[in-house]
Amino acid sequence: MYSHKLLKPDGRPLTLYSRYPIADNIIATSPSNEPVQANPHLRWHPLRGEWVAYASHRQGRTFMPPPEYNPLAPTTKPEFPTELPPGKYDVAVFDNRFPSMAQTAHDPPECIVETLPANGACEVVVFTQNAQASLSSLELEHLDLLLEVWGDRTRELGLNPQIQYVLPFENKGVEVGVTLHHPHGQIYAYPFVPPVPARMLAMQQEYYQEHQRGLLQDLIQKEIADNQRIIYQDEYAIAFVPVCARYPYEVWIAPKEPVGTFMDLTPQQRWGLAKALKTVTLKYDGLWNRPFPYLMAWFQAPTDGLAHPEAHLHAEFFPPYRTSERLKYLAGTELAAGMFANDALPEEKAKELQAVAVDIEMLISA
Amino acid sequence: MYSHKLLKPDGRPLTLYSRYPIADNIIATSPSNEPVQANPHLRWHPLRGEWVAYASHRQGRTFMPPPEYNPLAPTTKPEFPTELPPGKYDVAVFDNRFPSMAQTAHDPPECIVETLPANGACEVVVFTQNAQASLSSLELEHLDLLLEVWGDRTRELGLNPQIQYVLPFENKGVEVGVTLHHPHGQIYAYPFVPPVPARMLAMQQEYYQEHQRGLLQDLIQKEIADNQRIIYQDEYAIAFVPVCARYPYEVWIAPKEPVGTFMDLTPQQRWGLAKALKTVTLKYDGLWNRPFPYLMAWFQAPTDGLAHPEAHLHAEFFPPYRTSERLKYLAGTELAAGMFANDALPEEKAKELQAVAVDIEMLISA
Repeated sequence: MYSHKLLKPDGRPLTLYSRYPIADNIIATSPSNEPVQANPHLRWHPLRGEWVAYASHRQGRTFMPPPEYNPLAPTTKPEFPTELPPGKYDVAVFDNRFPSMAQTAHDPPECIVETLPANGACEVVVFTQNAQASLSSLELEHLDLLLEVWGDRTRELGLNPQIQYVLPFENKGVEVGVTLHHPHGQIYAYPFVPPVPARMLAMQQEYYQEHQRGLLQDLIQKEIADNQRIIYQDEYAIAFVPVCARYPYEVWIAPKEPVGTFMDLTPQQRWGLAKALKTVTLKYDGLWNRPFPYLMAWFQAPTDGLAHPEAHLHAEFFPPYRTSERLKYLAGTELAAGMFANDALPEEKAKELQAVAVDIEMLISA
Repeated sequence: MYSHKLLKPDGRPLTLYSRYPIADNIIATSPSNEPVQANPHLRWHPLRGEWVAYASHRQGRTFMPPPEYNPLAPTTKPEFPTELPPGKYDVAVFDNRFPSMAQTAHDPPECIVETLPANGACEVVVFTQNAQASLSSLELEHLDLLLEVWGDRTRELGLNPQIQYVLPFENKGVEVGVTLHHPHGQIYAYPFVPPVPARMLAMQQEYYQEHQRGLLQDLIQKEIADNQRIIYQDEYAIAFVPVCARYPYEVWIAPKEPVGTFMDLTPQQRWGLAKALKTVTLKYDGLWNRPFPYLMAWFQAPTDGLAHPEAHLHAEFFPPYRTSERLKYLAGTELAAGMFANDALPEEKAKELQAVAVDIEMLISA
């Protein structure tokens, strides 16, 4: 993997990644040259015992781009610069212009609850230069690169001693609020281990101490033995509708053996995950022959400098549909109580996905 | 308060509530006479350490109602019975025909994770016979009755030793997935204290042990002293945008002094809550001069037979809008990490709601 670090005219870092050497005459662009001065802060929610991030952003200068303007495509018209420069590279990562957390955050306001500067990071990951692509249409080599990029971001963000947890995710589809369809994801880096991964790590740690084995490792072995909900597997990786799916079309992807973070993956494990990722997204898109919306999040070990033998890198997909026409709305029991109610059995939904035939080796023209 | 218990032809209980005596010749109706045979089960989610409910329902016989058919209005055409009989009453409560939990659930399937029968209850609470009403348009006396009904349901459901927690809530608006606009809410009764109230009770208990005072009680005192985010208050009750709001237009309603459950409210406290409830919903509807969608949930002490001096009955409103035109979608950081990011300051949103003039004493013709 090759990478090339640049600085945007507004002061934000940009890193380009490629399987091939990157020309060193590329100059970073930005839709605005105004310095980014985000100063988000955290407030303590005493009843839930968790942090909430607040960022109210000053609107920048008026910017009237042409209708075809795509801020995530490489710049083609110098008078309308995008987030990305022209040139040859595969994946690009830069800081969000309107972040919920920023490494430069400082002097939080005084409140009737505890406050902190929101010293984290919010990065945008542009998966490809091709605005029409999606994870399902990218070549396996490209997905493999993306997994390596997530590892590089975890490593670099984790070097900041303030950063305790790095979460790569993708929100996909208007149904989950995404209006920008150029294939991209985000990385949130937190100055604490957030509540959901913290809970999962606590459960995993408890199991590890009792069994000296991984909780997800053993669940995967049980899923394999049960053989009802598996969507993909090879020697190194697996994808399945978990027995305890909260969303009807929920799928998890993981290396079969416990691996703490993206950085710890062997090339074989990474290749297996790339195949699993392509299989799942192709099956999703093939299910109703249309792009399938989801939230995909990758959970890994914290970057807190401690050993985490309990952690097991994996992705969870939360798709908003429960049937081809009906959305699953999160309402009273999910949001207020925290108990999910699923009107579909995971075994049934797994069958639907198993029945979608896909060919991950097929070359797709970019 | 008067109440009258009936049994629907399909075996489901129906309870009518009124401020006036209820005629004893009312006969319960149901859209279908087929016995309800729901048998939901729970599966343990080992990674999150929580229960997930599964209910896959057999579709009933084909039912082709006329277009104006409203299943929550009192029956007017005997050939198309609704959930409610004709007659004079104010509020009605019955079991959901397609419940995620049922007191009769039995024999859960065997799985690779622990399973249990979902021995809870899912009730529908019809707020009024008037299909055009809403909480904001109901008379204060009617809201006061509704608060008493929630108390009666908590008491009755709590008598079942399997039931540990009773959560009344209302999902309102197509934006939160509600297609039936007759004013109604739901009550979920759980065979365990669900994760969100469990977390809140743990935080409250820790505070109570240290300070011998309530966590929410003291937060309310601080909100009063800070005097920036208050939407309503009288001697007994208060409504405010909490300093740690996770949703832009989040509002909490509570008695000022700690009260464990609806059953423990004094008539003065209940009347104060009715006024707070009417003020908040009127301000919501007045903000953009249109019905304002939200999820409203009431948190109270568990019905586990133990003392809960730390508990403090209160409602939390989670509205889906962040501006009049834009929804707040829950995505990566909210759903995957559990950290909410709010791009509005609670102080600003409180100002917007404070500026909406309302008259809760105004009589509204039904």
